[in-house]
Amino acid sequence: MDQQTLPAVPRGFRLAGVHCGVKRNPAKEDLTLIVTDAPVTAAGVYTQNRVFGAPVGWDRARTPSTAIRAVVINSGVANACTGERGDRDAAEMARLAGETAGADAQAVLVMSTGVIGEHLPMDKIAAGIALAAERLGDDATALRGAARGMMTTDSIPKLAGKRLTIDGREVRVCGLAKGAAMIGPNMATMLSVLLTDAAIGPATAQALLRDCVDASFNCISVEGHMSTSDTVLLLASGDSPAETEVPSPLREALAEAAIDLARQIVADGEGTDHLITIDVSGCATRADAHRIAKTVAESALVKTAIAGADPNWGRIVSAAGYAGVDFDPRGIGLTLNAVPLYRDGERVAFDAAVVSTSLKENRDTHIELTFTEGDAGVRFWTTDLTAEYVRLNADYHT
Amino acid sequence: MDQQTLPAVPRGFRLAGVHCGVKRNPAKEDLTLIVTDAPVTAAGVYTQNRVFGAPVGWDRARTPSTAIRAVVINSGVANACTGERGDRDAAEMARLAGETAGADAQAVLVMSTGVIGEHLPMDKIAAGIALAAERLGDDATALRGAARGMMTTDSIPKLAGKRLTIDGREVRVCGLAKGAAMIGPNMATMLSVLLTDAAIGPATAQALLRDCVDASFNCISVEGHMSTSDTVLLLASGDSPAETEVPSPLREALAEAAIDLARQIVADGEGTDHLITIDVSGCATRADAHRIAKTVAESALVKTAIAGADPNWGRIVSAAGYAGVDFDPRGIGLTLNAVPLYRDGERVAFDAAVVSTSLKENRDTHIELTFTEGDAGVRFWTTDLTAEYVRLNADYHT
Repeated sequence: MDQQTLPAVPRGFRLAGVHCGVKRNPAKEDLTLIVTDAPVTAAGVYTQNRVFGAPVGWDRARTPSTAIRAVVINSGVANACTGERGDRDAAEMARLAGETAGADAQAVLVMSTGVIGEHLPMDKIAAGIALAAERLGDDATALRGAARGMMTTDSIPKLAGKRLTIDGREVRVCGLAKGAAMIGPNMATMLSVLLTDAAIGPATAQALLRDCVDASFNCISVEGHMSTSDTVLLLASGDSPAETEVPSPLREALAEAAIDLARQIVADGEGTDHLITIDVSGCATRADAHRIAKTVAESALVKTAIAGADPNWGRIVSAAGYAGVDFDPRGIGLTLNAVPLYRDGERVAFDAAVVSTSLKENRDTHIELTFTEGDAGVRFWTTDLTAEYVRLNADYHT
Repeated sequence: MDQQTLPAVPRGFRLAGVHCGVKRNPAKEDLTLIVTDAPVTAAGVYTQNRVFGAPVGWDRARTPSTAIRAVVINSGVANACTGERGDRDAAEMARLAGETAGADAQAVLVMSTGVIGEHLPMDKIAAGIALAAERLGDDATALRGAARGMMTTDSIPKLAGKRLTIDGREVRVCGLAKGAAMIGPNMATMLSVLLTDAAIGPATAQALLRDCVDASFNCISVEGHMSTSDTVLLLASGDSPAETEVPSPLREALAEAAIDLARQIVADGEGTDHLITIDVSGCATRADAHRIAKTVAESALVKTAIAGADPNWGRIVSAAGYAGVDFDPRGIGLTLNAVPLYRDGERVAFDAAVVSTSLKENRDTHIELTFTEGDAGVRFWTTDLTAEYVRLNADYHT
């Protein structure tokens, strides 16, 4: 998002990002605090990894909720694979952040991202929370600082959002995220917090967040490695939330913010040359379409072909074929950057040089796969696989 | 396998490999014919890809069988994604090969590997079958030629087998395979034919082959891309096969041959520096262990870490965590080249430099993952992921 058009912070939230010394570089924020004026609704969606960080366990047990007063986030150390001491450290972070809001630890959600297997430097975290509490604000500087405090190997902070008017009242939506960095020990951890000043009940918020995540963060893949710490939270500060239908414009604004952030995460992948959008349609179910898109997105052969500007339809079609989805192979269609390569189960005559040039000249790549099983589809985003990516990953040392 | 110790061809089979012109290089065999003296038992296990080559469809409809008289294999063109003409070409290959054995097309199994989306040059195939029929033999030259006729980007032919004595009678087991080449349009197609002169009934042969494949070819992964053409056949030429229990020594000899061939396939991967053996144990079921091993084997982050000689336990443990298997994360143990890195859900203090040196100095790499869910386990083989691999794959053009 253009720095000139930072989203407005929804009412009822104050934020700050500070440097407390988890990261060595003093110019890099490594702790973010979000405090609410009053208890808010909170929902959470978490990594499905069986090996999950202590903060994931803490938050999972406390969402959905109507009593959240703060979110505390640190970057640099993920507090994952840290045993019982890790659990105690997450609880202590919550307690310290709660104190700044005059609330109990139980009213605080926690996120950590960074190196796994290391314990948090709790003295630095405590000092950071205290410092952040002094700097809380709701302006662009506060928002940008908060987004920066989540970053690990991200090259830029990720923000999205909009203002909308619902029943004559302004409603704000604002999202912060940190990305699927491609190298390093953080293993592509994705963290995001979506904020709104609309009123949403906890069960509704949970269902809404699940839908948003399914169409955004669950539709991206950079290296297919699910981290121990992936977390997306939705906080809604509106008064008296009832369990009613969320107005479509609000639902859409939240979904758009999530998709915007998810795409920013993919776009920020280190060592990649192509951003690939995969549209799968004509499937019996959305789950089928998602499985096919994910399998194509994670195929090393597809990713290297795109990196090499090679219109290798065989790799794409055969990746779809092993997704574990039943379909009629004679009903497959494929276009690459709008050029048809495959139709009705057979290749189409096409000018490979033209498609290759299109791949070379455009960072954005568009794969469209069509089937004849039904009306369900999905849009998915990924990157190519370059030698530079492997070099970065092989050269990185724990 | 050492060229000095080629396995003996089981009785009842004659083989030949010839060059017929599907491949341009006249020094490279591209057609293999196997003819039996009498109808034999045949079983087959095939790719699960929904997009499968015409030969896979032909063979799948004809196995298990007690009436097979020949197998014809070509390399260079896979006859996959070739529509109805592809089906007709596979049937014609069967008819031509059957003629040489005085048999009907229905008694012939077909395999093709190579470029997908291209039609077979049937005039060359026909000439090749006729030439191979003249050169059939059961000596080492015939066997080596037959193994070479299956090759695509394999650097060496792959053979395995042994003689054993069962109830005072010599029984021979012999396997041929072509490999999971890492580059090119053949997308790691794996073909193998296991031959024995033991007597095995068709249902027993099918179950036995399934077991062999499950412990060998289904326990390797080079790039995780399932081809359109993967096929493993078992042919047994012994007289009067009854549906009885297969003697353990024969069962073991077939399993060993399959594992030997599978490992040769992994070892022949282009652009790789490390051969990785992954042992997963302590799981509730073998399927759980297999899923964990495969997920670790196919993690780009694990593979690049090994390429970079980095003892990155976090990547391995977290890959296990997203395999979709339920387990107690506090029961995980991990050793890398026999050095414990992780125990009871926490990292162990270890000398990273020592492990890194071990990874640098040894092509063979051993990952052992232990769980506390049960007694089931699996052994799996894969390779690392190097920048050279990506360069080869990105530079290759369709």
